[in-house]
Amino acid sequence: MSSVSVPPPKCLQKTFVAPRRHMFGPGPSNVPPRILAAGAEPVIGHMHPEMLEIMSDIKSGIQYAFQTENNMTIAVSGTGHTAMECAIFNAVEPGEGVLTAVNGIWGERAAEMAERIGAKVNSIVTTAGGYFTSEEIDQALAKHKPVLFFLTHGESSTGVVHPLDGIGDICHKHNCLFLVDCVASMGGAPLYMDKQGIDILYSGSQKVLNAPPGTAPISFSERACTYFLLLSMSFFLDMTWLANYWGCDGKPARIYHHTAPVSAFYALRESLAILAEQGLENSWQRHREVAEYLHEGVENMGLKLFVKDKNARLPTVTTIVAPPGYDWKEITSYIMKNHNLEISGGLGPSVGQVLRVGLMGGNSSKASVDMVLEALRDALRYCHKSKV
Amino acid sequence: MSSVSVPPPKCLQKTFVAPRRHMFGPGPSNVPPRILAAGAEPVIGHMHPEMLEIMSDIKSGIQYAFQTENNMTIAVSGTGHTAMECAIFNAVEPGEGVLTAVNGIWGERAAEMAERIGAKVNSIVTTAGGYFTSEEIDQALAKHKPVLFFLTHGESSTGVVHPLDGIGDICHKHNCLFLVDCVASMGGAPLYMDKQGIDILYSGSQKVLNAPPGTAPISFSERACTYFLLLSMSFFLDMTWLANYWGCDGKPARIYHHTAPVSAFYALRESLAILAEQGLENSWQRHREVAEYLHEGVENMGLKLFVKDKNARLPTVTTIVAPPGYDWKEITSYIMKNHNLEISGGLGPSVGQVLRVGLMGGNSSKASVDMVLEALRDALRYCHKSKV
Repeated sequence: MSSVSVPPPKCLQKTFVAPRRHMFGPGPSNVPPRILAAGAEPVIGHMHPEMLEIMSDIKSGIQYAFQTENNMTIAVSGTGHTAMECAIFNAVEPGEGVLTAVNGIWGERAAEMAERIGAKVNSIVTTAGGYFTSEEIDQALAKHKPVLFFLTHGESSTGVVHPLDGIGDICHKHNCLFLVDCVASMGGAPLYMDKQGIDILYSGSQKVLNAPPGTAPISFSERACTYFLLLSMSFFLDMTWLANYWGCDGKPARIYHHTAPVSAFYALRESLAILAEQGLENSWQRHREVAEYLHEGVENMGLKLFVKDKNARLPTVTTIVAPPGYDWKEITSYIMKNHNLEISGGLGPSVGQVLRVGLMGGNSSKASVDMVLEALRDALRYCHKSKV
Repeated sequence: MSSVSVPPPKCLQKTFVAPRRHMFGPGPSNVPPRILAAGAEPVIGHMHPEMLEIMSDIKSGIQYAFQTENNMTIAVSGTGHTAMECAIFNAVEPGEGVLTAVNGIWGERAAEMAERIGAKVNSIVTTAGGYFTSEEIDQALAKHKPVLFFLTHGESSTGVVHPLDGIGDICHKHNCLFLVDCVASMGGAPLYMDKQGIDILYSGSQKVLNAPPGTAPISFSERACTYFLLLSMSFFLDMTWLANYWGCDGKPARIYHHTAPVSAFYALRESLAILAEQGLENSWQRHREVAEYLHEGVENMGLKLFVKDKNARLPTVTTIVAPPGYDWKEITSYIMKNHNLEISGGLGPSVGQVLRVGLMGGNSSKASVDMVLEALRDALRYCHKSKV
């Protein structure tokens, strides 16, 4: 073989400096300097004793954030989507039934993942902005008899926080595992994995936790562990391997599975430490108060909130009805350009219908709300409005 | 629901400071301050224009490192194992044949992954430290008629760099895709994806690139793209989605797939920029010279190299026959404790047989070799030697 024929790319000669931006969309959130600094600590080995201690700390932090005593509690080396897939890959075999509750994009994605591995998937669907009653869920479980029921706690695409009380019991009555996505709600809205009978719960690092995206807390109840497959479709997400790697299987030796994202685990640990310092209940309360302050401000401007039912409004991500007569894209672009601030449009079923404001973790403050309201006021003044 | 019952964990009150350590094992390598600093830049949105530019830069950098003009070149949001799974998930359907070349742990793992999705897997196996002739590969392909042939370029568990010339043509003669793992060799040993007819090639960030673990370069030839499944088992690793997210499918709009690990991409970009600055051929040459300097020093100490064939010695990870009469674990522990330096034992088929020294990227220098040799000399002096 001769010499190199693809030359070094010129684009890599430019020094990259990330813009400073207010990350008030549905995530990722701003990452505070303390967490960035933790992520920039020197990299050590993924199986060095200090790393195993960090993983143990992360496990404790997730147990606290999830309010669970589950031993089978880890962080997946990936994003929320990876954790969603981890849950499904480990609990469902081809041909088994899965029921997903669709009131936004996440139920659709869970259905797609389950279909890919050959599960028999059914969905209950309600309008964007809505949620399901316990009776609707009970009836659907009775009809479809799935092994797994998927529900999104914090529907970031529509701004709905779904009620959870009682649903775990209904699932168990029907011999079904209760799988909950709390990517957008964990730390920002009350959630009690054990008391609420949730069997599999997962989240992400880049929302209330304010860590960079790339790690995803997940926990399995004892009941869920009995469903673990002998051989899941994925080696990388196989919980038998991961349980050993995270020291959850009681075996003395850790066997090399994959190389953990060491720096991302440093950052995740730090973000969980901050949540523990602040206290979960304080965090829930602050997110609720800040959200209510935002809701009030939005309504005072003459805009409408997308979720009618006050109790169903997600405290972390607020959906505002896209102002009639305006192009929502012009509004978000104007605000990004003139206020250096991200708010976003809809996602999945809410595209074109809403603006979304996410104030999570350190971003959840009245000062942030004031900035958002000021930016919105300014955009409505300067963006084009059709005369129709 | 009442109040919190799982209290905040005390272990998170401790401030974590990572130890400073010479990472001279098979990876992760030391991450230089410049890359750590890039990873600590403020987090922006995974679909902000600056992020799409970073992804474009990363794509160019990988094309250079792989020596390929493949349009379908991206980084997987995961480790080398994730990329291995991505390759298999996208190219193989249940019931199809896969042949893996096993001369260490990686061929075993690829076989396990392919089995999990229901492929018909066969393997050719040689002893740890060995490799395969083109004739052996040709015969095995003729016999098993697989759709995919897996080969490890840099076998980090045994210290072998596998010859690649001519194997692509043999695969194509048998209507088979040529899949190569270059996690431990990319940037450290000559590799020409296009010229060598490699159809799928993947690597990892934490070896020669010196970035934190958690991202994995991967590239697909045009031939490989025609194998892409309509629906792979995994949504997260589906190349049709990922191709769009990385702007490789020619479509104008990027559709939200998953939230990329923004900080990890910053770091990966910086690591590729450093490789481009230094020049691939310079990097290959330096790794070879440093490895030869290490080999000489090891043999001068009376130790033996595990790979007999000089041309088959991997320039990034050197395997040394575990010194007879010593407990290899005592040696690595002694060196870690007294020299703050990691070298490691074997992995998979080489466990108990070897010590492994990895000098990759910035760690590949004669000064590092001198430190390793000094540490080894010291360990052999002070560790227990049986009198047998």
